[in-house]
Amino acid sequence: MRTYIQTLADHIGEEVTIAGWINVRRDHGKLVFLDLRDRTGLLQMVALPNHAEAHAIAGTVRPEWVVGVTGMVNKRPEKMVNANSPTGTIELEITEMRVLAQAEELPFDKDTELNLDTYLDYLPLTLRTERAQATFRVQARIIQAFREFLIQEGFTEAQVPKLVGGDAEGGASVFPVEYFGHTAYLATSPQLYKQILVGVFERVFTTGNMYRAEKHSTTRHLNEYTSLDLEMGFIKDHTDIMDLERRMLAHIMQALARDSAADFALFGTEIPTVGETVPTWKLREAQEIIKKEFGEDCVGEPDLEPQHERWLCEYAKNKFNSDFAFITHYPVKKRPFYTYEDEADPGFTKSFDLLFRGVEITTGGQRIHEYGKLIENIKAWGLKPESFSYYLQAFKYGMPPEGGLAIGLERLTAKLLGIENVKQATLFPRDLNRIDTLLSGGKEEK
Amino acid sequence: MRTYIQTLADHIGEEVTIAGWINVRRDHGKLVFLDLRDRTGLLQMVALPNHAEAHAIAGTVRPEWVVGVTGMVNKRPEKMVNANSPTGTIELEITEMRVLAQAEELPFDKDTELNLDTYLDYLPLTLRTERAQATFRVQARIIQAFREFLIQEGFTEAQVPKLVGGDAEGGASVFPVEYFGHTAYLATSPQLYKQILVGVFERVFTTGNMYRAEKHSTTRHLNEYTSLDLEMGFIKDHTDIMDLERRMLAHIMQALARDSAADFALFGTEIPTVGETVPTWKLREAQEIIKKEFGEDCVGEPDLEPQHERWLCEYAKNKFNSDFAFITHYPVKKRPFYTYEDEADPGFTKSFDLLFRGVEITTGGQRIHEYGKLIENIKAWGLKPESFSYYLQAFKYGMPPEGGLAIGLERLTAKLLGIENVKQATLFPRDLNRIDTLLSGGKEEK
Repeated sequence: MRTYIQTLADHIGEEVTIAGWINVRRDHGKLVFLDLRDRTGLLQMVALPNHAEAHAIAGTVRPEWVVGVTGMVNKRPEKMVNANSPTGTIELEITEMRVLAQAEELPFDKDTELNLDTYLDYLPLTLRTERAQATFRVQARIIQAFREFLIQEGFTEAQVPKLVGGDAEGGASVFPVEYFGHTAYLATSPQLYKQILVGVFERVFTTGNMYRAEKHSTTRHLNEYTSLDLEMGFIKDHTDIMDLERRMLAHIMQALARDSAADFALFGTEIPTVGETVPTWKLREAQEIIKKEFGEDCVGEPDLEPQHERWLCEYAKNKFNSDFAFITHYPVKKRPFYTYEDEADPGFTKSFDLLFRGVEITTGGQRIHEYGKLIENIKAWGLKPESFSYYLQAFKYGMPPEGGLAIGLERLTAKLLGIENVKQATLFPRDLNRIDTLLSGGKEEK
Repeated sequence: MRTYIQTLADHIGEEVTIAGWINVRRDHGKLVFLDLRDRTGLLQMVALPNHAEAHAIAGTVRPEWVVGVTGMVNKRPEKMVNANSPTGTIELEITEMRVLAQAEELPFDKDTELNLDTYLDYLPLTLRTERAQATFRVQARIIQAFREFLIQEGFTEAQVPKLVGGDAEGGASVFPVEYFGHTAYLATSPQLYKQILVGVFERVFTTGNMYRAEKHSTTRHLNEYTSLDLEMGFIKDHTDIMDLERRMLAHIMQALARDSAADFALFGTEIPTVGETVPTWKLREAQEIIKKEFGEDCVGEPDLEPQHERWLCEYAKNKFNSDFAFITHYPVKKRPFYTYEDEADPGFTKSFDLLFRGVEITTGGQRIHEYGKLIENIKAWGLKPESFSYYLQAFKYGMPPEGGLAIGLERLTAKLLGIENVKQATLFPRDLNRIDTLLSGGKEEK
């Protein structure tokens, strides 16, 4: 019966069997110290000559060998206690050791600071670092908390297609797929599907990969990313969506504070708190703030530049102690055809971006739910209503006022942990130059 | 403040405001009966002439119009009670009614039995039927229960790419994607990634879309489907995976019994119970059973035909009262290169399929974790180790004995509910002829 490292402090004076990977061997000849890693933690073990067979094996193992170990859990002498480790008060005295798998010599020390290309070339190995493990544990906790909150709020999860039939908006930023003699495309967002599903479930969410064929190579963009999407009906306006997002983020941050504190400690970053109110400015107000506080006149521009977003976040933090800021009312022409125009502020939309620590992590808003108005807008955007006839059915047959939002999971993960390049918050990132050309097919199952 | 239909029985004698879609209007002139549908249920409402304005509006609304309604919750007279409806003891007397969105006349009665093509041509409308809603609520509950169970068991969720670099196995069944001047492919399974991640998290799961470019047009296959995948390290052999699956299915069925009983009642299908043991036969034993019990001699064939799977399920049900049956030990040559050969039964693998109500819903097994043996097998399968060098790193640098499985979400949903064609257990199915050519692009957000 295997015991996990995390629980060993409850087994002092007992014999246990554990298993994992050798992290480090410090060989002092008679005493061989080994750090063992399993999915719950890291443990110092010691092999003594009185268990000759185990001692001999301990002298041969190297980093990343996989072993099973039986031994006695001992309390460490006071002066050997390592206060920085959750298992720093104990040590395992090895009585028996079995090699489950050998590892070849590592191409570099696993904990060396690597350049990004090397890191990416060796992901099966580099993902085994404490830092990478912590990153993706946090990411898993975020997506889980996203779903928990929405299920509580009466949302239904949906599985929507990523293979779509047309590129009606005519952009160059989609990937074409050869589909039985036709050309299909990889979806850039689940937008139209989630809106259709408001007619079915009122409240719907979906999480999954989305695709942008943009040729940028920045620290903020990915060609394949995970989109956390929600959409809901019977709203008053976009502020209902913003309020939901505020409560959702509060839920996510509470979950992280409860379950991921150790992972955040490793990065030395703080889990933000989400206040009862989040600073909210219309785009034009935000531009006035930039002009007044930071001296750059961008008033009247249709969108914010990255530097503007950083300034606004700085201002929100200093002035309102908030890591978050909502920007609303982007111009009608800068948003997609389905964005709702504010009757009380013509030319501007009931849309919003959420800024967090210097970057936009969410776009959302109220959508047009009136069939006639949607057709009118599709035409005004230079598109063809026929291309949208499937989507338009949802509105033809009765759709309540509705809206929604999307969050990029990898970007949120990166900003929360203070990771500079979003590629390091993506398990196997896809970019202009990299698509695991060395990792191939492999079919099985279903 | 909006009240949901589900809770109205707690508001008898009170005035409430509700909202939803008109399901049916039965106009008796003075009395206008309207059935209203929201995401929690269906409610009979009545408009009386004493509220003239509401009565006038009630006389104009048609199916799928979206309305907000204020009214009094009344107990129905004894003889008007409808025991078949959860709200059959109450009725809403309308005092006020607002039209939130009109709907055009429906192309057919929403509850008519439709042929599959018509059903698929009008999904934004046909998904609004009770039957479709129930199907996808059940599907959402399955995937949620899958995740709940695995998180409890210490698994970490991973987001893995669907865009992969090579088609190393050289099959014709992958979709090519034009990727910045190179050819990429849509993943047929997350197999190689989840195996790599056993080296990182020991226990990992992932849910997402997968792609098969097979030109079949059956009731069991999809070209884009949702794969529920898990993989775990430090196993004894494939039976650890089978045991985990048995416990996982028990958890899923308990969740459905608790939360989805009404949805199953609509289909008249039973939620299976999962026993402490599931009938388990080696492929050869299963073939002997078929020969003996059903008179067909398929002994020695490398795989089961669909009819064989149906017979074995019939036998498992009649003889062991089990809806499930495991078939193990498929021949080495019929399984992928990474499948573990059983030392005690040479030529046969530590692999399994799980059959449920006549079809295979899972494939799984122990994988080869020894680097040298994997390379040997890749060659024996006529493939090139170089093409797998990325994947192979995971084994080069130490991998414990490991295994996993995959479940097709749509197929499981269909079999649970007794839906004959898996396309009706898929929100927006992709097949040889259908990819929503009428639903296009639509970019927003992130």
